[in-house]
Amino acid sequence: MRKETRARLVEEARRLFWEQGYAATGVAQILDSAEARSGSLYYFFPTKEDLLLAVLDHYRELLDPAVVRPAFVRVRDPIERIFGILDGYRKQLVATKFRRGCPIGNLALEVANDLPAARKLVSENFNAWRKVIEQCLADAAGRLPRSVNREQLALFVLTTMEGAMMLARTYRSTEPYDAAVTALRDYFDHLIKAGTDWRRPKHKKKR
Amino acid sequence: MRKETRARLVEEARRLFWEQGYAATGVAQILDSAEARSGSLYYFFPTKEDLLLAVLDHYRELLDPAVVRPAFVRVRDPIERIFGILDGYRKQLVATKFRRGCPIGNLALEVANDLPAARKLVSENFNAWRKVIEQCLADAAGRLPRSVNREQLALFVLTTMEGAMMLARTYRSTEPYDAAVTALRDYFDHLIKAGTDWRRPKHKKKR
Repeated sequence: MRKETRARLVEEARRLFWEQGYAATGVAQILDSAEARSGSLYYFFPTKEDLLLAVLDHYRELLDPAVVRPAFVRVRDPIERIFGILDGYRKQLVATKFRRGCPIGNLALEVANDLPAARKLVSENFNAWRKVIEQCLADAAGRLPRSVNREQLALFVLTTMEGAMMLARTYRSTEPYDAAVTALRDYFDHLIKAGTDWRRPKHKKKR
Repeated sequence: MRKETRARLVEEARRLFWEQGYAATGVAQILDSAEARSGSLYYFFPTKEDLLLAVLDHYRELLDPAVVRPAFVRVRDPIERIFGILDGYRKQLVATKFRRGCPIGNLALEVANDLPAARKLVSENFNAWRKVIEQCLADAAGRLPRSVNREQLALFVLTTMEGAMMLARTYRSTEPYDAAVTALRDYFDHLIKAGTDWRRPKHKKKR
């Protein structure tokens, strides 16, 4: 019962922070949405910041079931899996009429200055996401130039996603998202072209 | 005198929204910082949202003197001017110890859902920024492949900047910013390589 109340509080806080932001969401609204009493909220979460930390912890757990697996079951190719993950965010933008972007990105800018514990959890969420992309890049290493810095490239994929989500939400259109992902895809095409030698294998001249 | 008070209110609101966000900044704090009385605030700005709109208008005016000109006076090459603008944001990150990212990007995610007038002004700020980059790309057209979609590429530069600022602020480090800009630079290098034919000009065989 108690566990259920806690989970409900985290879930409703997560939803409200996602749509409205952290500062704009009042504790009263969270209580109302979770149909909980203030006593149970303060029992689990003495401050609103504690609730935010629980939400950010929960996002770490959601990365695999909510972001990675839905993309990975659809396609096996490691490069396509990266673009599959990016497509998942696009689907969410459309499904929520641009109301819900990347929940981590939204919170990232809000907590960067004054909530160091939350900022640390945001960075851990980003780290986990980057590791997924880095693994895809490692799996595709044979197609990429040896000079590619996979850590840097994975980070570039993340900056593209976050920037593209921001613009799609601002313009209420998938166009900027698609434009950024298409440019990223073009960059990958250039890398793959540079990393793959399609010429016929050279044979030593016999003579 | 009145004009001065209005300008001071806009300036202090701008600074506070930039550092703390819109929702987290109270009207009382703005009044305090601007050393103004609530009467003069409500005279110019009946609501906090009106003040936000004035701040976003002001950012449109600041684009040229604060972002474009400082980069353009240092370098003439159009591609280098793009990276000069990106370098300007990096300098600001370092100078403010990562407290101040892109003020437009910060506000973009906060206002996307529930403040349509502000969202529109955010998109106009993005449009103006993109136009500057598009002009640089047009000036460098001879070096880029003809197939390049300059509108798309300018948008990609913006998503890179916004995503990179977000990560730099989260990690409190220039490293993710530099990684993203280095990857973008690598993409430009690939484009320039594909767009430039360094072979000797072909002459028709005389025979």
